[in-house]
Amino acid sequence: MEFQENPVAPEPSAERDDRPAAPSLEPLFQLLKADLARVNALIVERMDSPVALIPQLAGHIVSAGGKRLRPMLTLAAARLCGYRGERHLALAAAVEFIHTATLLHDDVVDASDLRRGRDTANAVWGNKPAVLVGDFLFARSFQLMVADGSLRVLDILSQTAAVIAEGEVHQLITANDTATTEAAYLEVVEAKTAALFAAASRVGAIVAERPAEEEDALERFGRNLGIAYQLVDDMLDFSARESEFGKSVGDDFRDGKITLPILIAFARGDAEERTFWRRTLEAGEQGPGDLDRAISLVERRGALAETRARARRYASAAADALAVFPDSPLRRALVETAAFTTQRGF
Amino acid sequence: MEFQENPVAPEPSAERDDRPAAPSLEPLFQLLKADLARVNALIVERMDSPVALIPQLAGHIVSAGGKRLRPMLTLAAARLCGYRGERHLALAAAVEFIHTATLLHDDVVDASDLRRGRDTANAVWGNKPAVLVGDFLFARSFQLMVADGSLRVLDILSQTAAVIAEGEVHQLITANDTATTEAAYLEVVEAKTAALFAAASRVGAIVAERPAEEEDALERFGRNLGIAYQLVDDMLDFSARESEFGKSVGDDFRDGKITLPILIAFARGDAEERTFWRRTLEAGEQGPGDLDRAISLVERRGALAETRARARRYASAAADALAVFPDSPLRRALVETAAFTTQRGF
Repeated sequence: MEFQENPVAPEPSAERDDRPAAPSLEPLFQLLKADLARVNALIVERMDSPVALIPQLAGHIVSAGGKRLRPMLTLAAARLCGYRGERHLALAAAVEFIHTATLLHDDVVDASDLRRGRDTANAVWGNKPAVLVGDFLFARSFQLMVADGSLRVLDILSQTAAVIAEGEVHQLITANDTATTEAAYLEVVEAKTAALFAAASRVGAIVAERPAEEEDALERFGRNLGIAYQLVDDMLDFSARESEFGKSVGDDFRDGKITLPILIAFARGDAEERTFWRRTLEAGEQGPGDLDRAISLVERRGALAETRARARRYASAAADALAVFPDSPLRRALVETAAFTTQRGF
Repeated sequence: MEFQENPVAPEPSAERDDRPAAPSLEPLFQLLKADLARVNALIVERMDSPVALIPQLAGHIVSAGGKRLRPMLTLAAARLCGYRGERHLALAAAVEFIHTATLLHDDVVDASDLRRGRDTANAVWGNKPAVLVGDFLFARSFQLMVADGSLRVLDILSQTAAVIAEGEVHQLITANDTATTEAAYLEVVEAKTAALFAAASRVGAIVAERPAEEEDALERFGRNLGIAYQLVDDMLDFSARESEFGKSVGDDFRDGKITLPILIAFARGDAEERTFWRRTLEAGEQGPGDLDRAISLVERRGALAETRARARRYASAAADALAVFPDSPLRRALVETAAFTTQRGF
C-alpha cells in the first residue's frame, strides 16, 4: 500500500519494542480529555432549540465521530500558552460550530450521501433543513464569541468564515478544469481548510494573552497542519478503504474536483492519460471502471506518494513552528498530531 | 379587487385633490436618500472578492431592485433618535447582508426560479454558489459589525440570525400540515421576518445611545411592521399580479406552505373545501386549475380581506410605537411606511 510507512514487517528482535509506534491523536486527546468533555457538553447545550429538528439534525453530524481536531487546536494552544481560565472552552465550541456549519453546506453543495461512514444530514432530511441548520450553527457560533466578548476573536473568526466561503466558491470554479495550477489549488486549500486550523490555534493564544510571537507561532502551526491535513484528505480519496475513511472513495473524482494527486498525475501523464483525465473530469463523462483507472493512474505516476511527501513538508513546518515553546508533553503531543496527519489512513 | 382601497373611482370634483394619495415609501426614501446612497456604495464595496463569481452572484441579488426596507429602518431609527454620526451606515449594510444571505438560502430551499421579477441566483448559477455566497455575505455582515465594535449590536444581530434560521426550519415543519395553528404560524412570521425588522430598528437607536424607552419603541415599531409586511406578503401570493409582485403568484401554495390566508379559508371552509386543501397541501397532489381554485376559495371565504385587516392592526401598533418621538417629517414618513406595508400591491 502506497501510504504504509513500513511495508515490510520487521523481524522480531530485542529492539522491536523500541520501534516508534505509529503516530496517533491519542496523546493529544488524553491531555485535553477533561476540557474536551466540557466543550462537547457546551456544543450539545448550545445547539439546542425549541424547534426539535435543529438539535436532531445538528446532533447527527456533531456526534458522527469527527476527530474534533479544530476545537482541540484551540484548547491545546491555550494550554500550551499556560492559560488557566475557561474562555477557551466556549471558543473551541464556536470553532467546531463554524466547522460543522461548513460541513452541512458542503454536503449539500457536493450532494454527498456519506460522511464519516454515516448518511449525511442532507441524505436523511433533505437539503432544506441541512442549509438552514448550517445557518443556525453559524449564528450560534457568533453568539458564543459575543458572549466571550473579545472583538479580536470575533474579527479573526468572522474573517475566517468569509475566507472559507471564498475558498469553497473558488473550488467550484476550478472544478472540471485540468488547467488549474497548483498555486490555485493551494489557494483553495489554504482558504477552505487551513484558515480555520490557523484561526482555531491563534484564538487559543489570544485568550492566554501571550505575546505576538507565540500567537504567530500557533497560527503558523495551525495553517501548515491544515494544509497537510487537506493534502492527505485529497490523497485518501484515491486510496482509503471506505470503511476506514468513513466517506466514499472517489467522491472528489466523481465531482470533478481538481486535487493535487490529479494535477501531478496529469502533469506526468502521457497523451492518452491526459485524454482520460479530460474526458472524466472536464467533460464529466465517467463510466464503470473509470474510478479504478484513475486510482491506478495516480498510483502509477507516483502522485499519491508525491502528495504525501508534500504533506509531510507542511507537517514538518507545523512542528517547527512550535519551537518557541519549551518542551512539554503537550508540545510533544502536537508534534505527534502533525505526524499523524500525514500518516493517517482515515 | 380585494385589496383595492377605493374600488369605485371617485367622480371628478373640487375635493379630488384633497383625497389622500396612496401611502408610499417615497417620503422615507427621500429623507434617507443621501444615507442610502452611501449604504449602497458600502454594500458594493464589501461584497467584493478576488473570487469574481462572488460579487457577480451577490450583485445579481443585491441590485435586483429590493426596497432596502430593512437597512432603511436602521438609518431612519438612528436619525429619528437625532444621531449625527456615521456608524448607522455600516450597520445598515450589515442588516442588508444578513437579509440577502437569507434570501439566497431561501431560494435554494424553496427551489424558487423568480424573485422580484428576475431569475433567482440559484436558477442562474445553480444551488452550490448560491449557498456559499450566502455564507460569504453572512460572514461579511459580521465583519462589518466587528469593525463597528459594539458587542451589543453583535449580540442582537447574532441572536437575530439564529432566530431567523429557527423560524425557517419551523416553517419547513409546518409545511403541508393543515392542522398548523395560527399561533405556530405567527411564531414563524415573528422569527423569519419580524425579528430582523425589529433588530434593524433597534440597532439604529443603539448607535444614537438613546434611553431604553426609545430603543424599545423602535424595536416594537420594527417587529409590528415586520409582521404586517409578512402577512401582506402571504396574502399577495394569492392575489398579486406577477408583473407587479415580482415573484411568482402561488409559490407558497405550490410549496405547501401553510399561511394565514389558507388557515382562515380552511377554518371557514366546508367539508369539500377542506378535502381540497388536504389534497393539494398535505398530500401535495396539485393539478391544473388547483391554484385558480385556491385563489377563488381564499377570496370567497374572505381570507384575503381578513389577512389584510390583521396586517392593518399590526401596522397601527407599529405607528403607535413611535408616539414617544416628537412629530417630524421622518416620523410621519415611518407612519406612512406602516400604512404602505398593508396597502401595497407588490
